[in-house]
Amino acid sequence: MQFLNGQDYIQQVSIDCVIFGYQKKQLKVLVPKLALKGDFSSLPGGFILQNESIDQAARRILQARTGLKDIYLEQFRVFGDLGRNNMPFFEQIVGLNQEQQGAESFNRKELEWITRRFISIGYYALVDIHQVVPQKSEIDQSIEWYTINELPSLIMDHNQIVANALQSLRLSLDQKLIGFTLLPEIFTMKDLQELYETIYDKPFARNNFQKKMLELDVLDRLEKKFTGAANKAPYLYRFRK
Amino acid sequence: MQFLNGQDYIQQVSIDCVIFGYQKKQLKVLVPKLALKGDFSSLPGGFILQNESIDQAARRILQARTGLKDIYLEQFRVFGDLGRNNMPFFEQIVGLNQEQQGAESFNRKELEWITRRFISIGYYALVDIHQVVPQKSEIDQSIEWYTINELPSLIMDHNQIVANALQSLRLSLDQKLIGFTLLPEIFTMKDLQELYETIYDKPFARNNFQKKMLELDVLDRLEKKFTGAANKAPYLYRFRK
Repeated sequence: MQFLNGQDYIQQVSIDCVIFGYQKKQLKVLVPKLALKGDFSSLPGGFILQNESIDQAARRILQARTGLKDIYLEQFRVFGDLGRNNMPFFEQIVGLNQEQQGAESFNRKELEWITRRFISIGYYALVDIHQVVPQKSEIDQSIEWYTINELPSLIMDHNQIVANALQSLRLSLDQKLIGFTLLPEIFTMKDLQELYETIYDKPFARNNFQKKMLELDVLDRLEKKFTGAANKAPYLYRFRK
Repeated sequence: MQFLNGQDYIQQVSIDCVIFGYQKKQLKVLVPKLALKGDFSSLPGGFILQNESIDQAARRILQARTGLKDIYLEQFRVFGDLGRNNMPFFEQIVGLNQEQQGAESFNRKELEWITRRFISIGYYALVDIHQVVPQKSEIDQSIEWYTINELPSLIMDHNQIVANALQSLRLSLDQKLIGFTLLPEIFTMKDLQELYETIYDKPFARNNFQKKMLELDVLDRLEKKFTGAANKAPYLYRFRK
């Protein structure tokens, strides 16, 4: 485990990351499955070193899982309920994995550290899914993109954390113009509308949507996309940063 | 100090509260001044007991300063920069207050605890200013409402925390219909418009504003306000919870 390396972390505070990607009209979340008996999946997360800011900690965790350095991320909520601890999860692990290395590799002190109550700072990240090569950590069996409506059951309150992240993303989408970070650099107005429809889970009127987006004055219009049928070719756009 | 009572707090995590009130077209913030030489003011804050949630901790801190139990509060951001510690502040205190009880009342262990790096969870609260009787804590000289544009210089990054709270309040005002918590129970449309104009620091067109508010369908219209000039009497409204 991370905290065994003799590094000094802040106690009882963790970071959990909801990494959003978008592909084929679906909003997806990157979820690792732990290399333990019992099908445990969780959000990518970690702890905060004494000598790094919370944003630096989040970036470090995100880079380790996506391979990307420059990620749009947003702190969206702290989860600080009284019952937030890993104890039930670790009891299950120890019960199910007695003969495996996973359980033995925790000594008493480490178990004490990790099973205390944790306050977790939730970050969400928006990535261009095509640029990500998902990375397993040493304790993962696999790591995969899941459509947000088909997430597996995650440990602790992690499903709730995803629900909260989506809620925050919806609130911020118009005000902060962050949706573009989920698209490739060049896109059509239809791509953009489909993204918004996917995130809000409702349709928008095409003319209104286009008008609203153009009025924001943040899109550069490029040449028409070559589709073969010249007069129906849609314009391509790029977000002006 | 609070943490001397033998109670067990989570280490290196604090809560800071921005308590907003509204009066005479001014948005105000409740700020205590510490009973120490050197004019130190800070946001009302505190720590999180092992046996309370972060929301419970915030409510406990808010109740202690306002006397109110039922307060609208919103967690809005975590402040987790690397340099966030009380050390410079405490060095100043010790330097300025050597002969005073304030400095002596800290022993080495307590000083160590409180001068470590702190991650602070920012909450803002919205209160009906007329219902609040501001309460000094044992370490305060005074506690007062300040107009947000005329805040004193606060310790650490507390001025920045207020700026962030205002930003979050603006983002949430329309979406969450929380502005009403800053007004008395009964108000006129003009009162409401002035509140919005104060928070956003810009004027709104009267007809548009009224139309938009009525369309929200959350206001109960009551009898007209008696002003003496009957045909100019404005309607009174109440927020339907």
